[in-house]
Amino acid sequence: MNRSELTNQIRQKENYLCIGLDTDVSKLPAHLRDKPDAVFQFNKAIIDATKDYCVSYKINTAFYEAQGLKGWEAMEQTVQYIPAMHFKIADAKRGDIGNTSAQYAKTFFETLPFNAVTINPYMGEDSVRPFLEYDNKFAIVLGLTSNAGAHDFEMLHVSRTHKKQEVHTEIGKHHLKIYTEELEEEEQEKDEPLHYLYEMVLEKVSSWGKPDNLMFVAGATRATELAAIRRIVPDNFLLVPGVGAQGGSLKEVSEHGINKDIGLLVNVSRAVIYASAGEDFAALAAIAAKGYCGEMQPFVAHR
Amino acid sequence: MNRSELTNQIRQKENYLCIGLDTDVSKLPAHLRDKPDAVFQFNKAIIDATKDYCVSYKINTAFYEAQGLKGWEAMEQTVQYIPAMHFKIADAKRGDIGNTSAQYAKTFFETLPFNAVTINPYMGEDSVRPFLEYDNKFAIVLGLTSNAGAHDFEMLHVSRTHKKQEVHTEIGKHHLKIYTEELEEEEQEKDEPLHYLYEMVLEKVSSWGKPDNLMFVAGATRATELAAIRRIVPDNFLLVPGVGAQGGSLKEVSEHGINKDIGLLVNVSRAVIYASAGEDFAALAAIAAKGYCGEMQPFVAHR
Repeated sequence: MNRSELTNQIRQKENYLCIGLDTDVSKLPAHLRDKPDAVFQFNKAIIDATKDYCVSYKINTAFYEAQGLKGWEAMEQTVQYIPAMHFKIADAKRGDIGNTSAQYAKTFFETLPFNAVTINPYMGEDSVRPFLEYDNKFAIVLGLTSNAGAHDFEMLHVSRTHKKQEVHTEIGKHHLKIYTEELEEEEQEKDEPLHYLYEMVLEKVSSWGKPDNLMFVAGATRATELAAIRRIVPDNFLLVPGVGAQGGSLKEVSEHGINKDIGLLVNVSRAVIYASAGEDFAALAAIAAKGYCGEMQPFVAHR
Repeated sequence: MNRSELTNQIRQKENYLCIGLDTDVSKLPAHLRDKPDAVFQFNKAIIDATKDYCVSYKINTAFYEAQGLKGWEAMEQTVQYIPAMHFKIADAKRGDIGNTSAQYAKTFFETLPFNAVTINPYMGEDSVRPFLEYDNKFAIVLGLTSNAGAHDFEMLHVSRTHKKQEVHTEIGKHHLKIYTEELEEEEQEKDEPLHYLYEMVLEKVSSWGKPDNLMFVAGATRATELAAIRRIVPDNFLLVPGVGAQGGSLKEVSEHGINKDIGLLVNVSRAVIYASAGEDFAALAAIAAKGYCGEMQPFVAHR
């Protein structure tokens, strides 16, 4: 699936909902729990009930791997069961040296029929490149995530240059440290210096690919930062987790994140798939998904 | 396996070699390639031939996942086949929000009998914590990696504080930017300001765990940086990839990386397991492993 096919589907269905299949065996409805293929049966029922109310499904690989071989089988069955028109994301947070990332790209783009896989950028360019070498497949690189830990490294201040000098001085009881940085020629053109590591990640990684093969994860619990993110990557799709159980506001995300092609996939996992723990789980998942679609409709209709 | 058991094994065998089972189906010897369980048969022969010449095996999960269900089965068979006394590492580079990292910890520490798993720290504390909550299991967190991409983000300059002010000025043709940073009280005690993101990662992450449940990845192609790494994490084991096919020097790594308890696991993958592409592959893998042991022996014997 390419970018314009995804955009067309969003305009037709008037939603940009991605449903996260973080299927946890300990949370399955009682009547399914003892079936040999309980996870797949659960996912199948969720997909059947919700496929008209979303444009994408995201499989969180951790929940499947935790079940070993049986879990991997359920993941294979599930991704193969998702209708062809839906955008299929492996939320796997992979990334390693080049020859190893190439194996992960093979896993999700050849062995399994995913359209996209989430990538951790820490190891840099050669860890991301192998995912960009497939036609009509997407690397979705972590920018700013929705968890508390985002403050530890993603939101550190970084410097663009390596030529740095320091001066220390005492003023009253305060110890001041002064850096001088000589900027590279091309840096001088830019008005606004970058502040956070995640902003540098967005800027650098976006130069390695195009909106046709590269998206970014932008956590919804920080909707106010979405405007800043949009300034750095105006054209790339953003995959936004954190709405629903994690507390992000769909309205704020939509206001700050939508671009001229919509350019958003908002993921909801637990608030849809565990809407009910009873035999009616699939029907209630559909109602929950339909609710999110209703909130999204005006944002699509007005573009 | 706990840390002192690992150290004892290193002292007994007089080596700190980890053999990386990055088993690529396209590189298997011709006589094995068509067997239904070729990958496991290859690994089994390598393990039988090398187990006396190493203290650890590292399974690179990407190479197994790329083969789908069959690959996952080969990984399970392999980790179960490795003798109990060897330290078993899942080189998986995982990390996600807390509830998802907990599933990955379950995958490698409960569903599969690994002793350790490699972790990507980008998402911060709650993405690492679940791996630290198991007795006698280890999170091996990426510090500085051995690939070219390490320059993109791991080696960015970071600032320890968020209170930052900027002054811009022109001197001749140069545009200078001056930052002033007010340091937190406790920061003033430290003589040496941190420079790189990976150094901040080592410092922060090491405060979340202990040498008894936390190791770090420190790439061997940058042996000169190992001394700096040792100053920040003097007591944690370091897993050092990059010796062998990636060009790192075992001698330099050993000189700069060893601590009072040895504290090193040096991984070699391709240079051992693909020492020969013929029917003699296992015998030649043993010779290669024995060669590395010979180089390691004096470093262990002198401590």
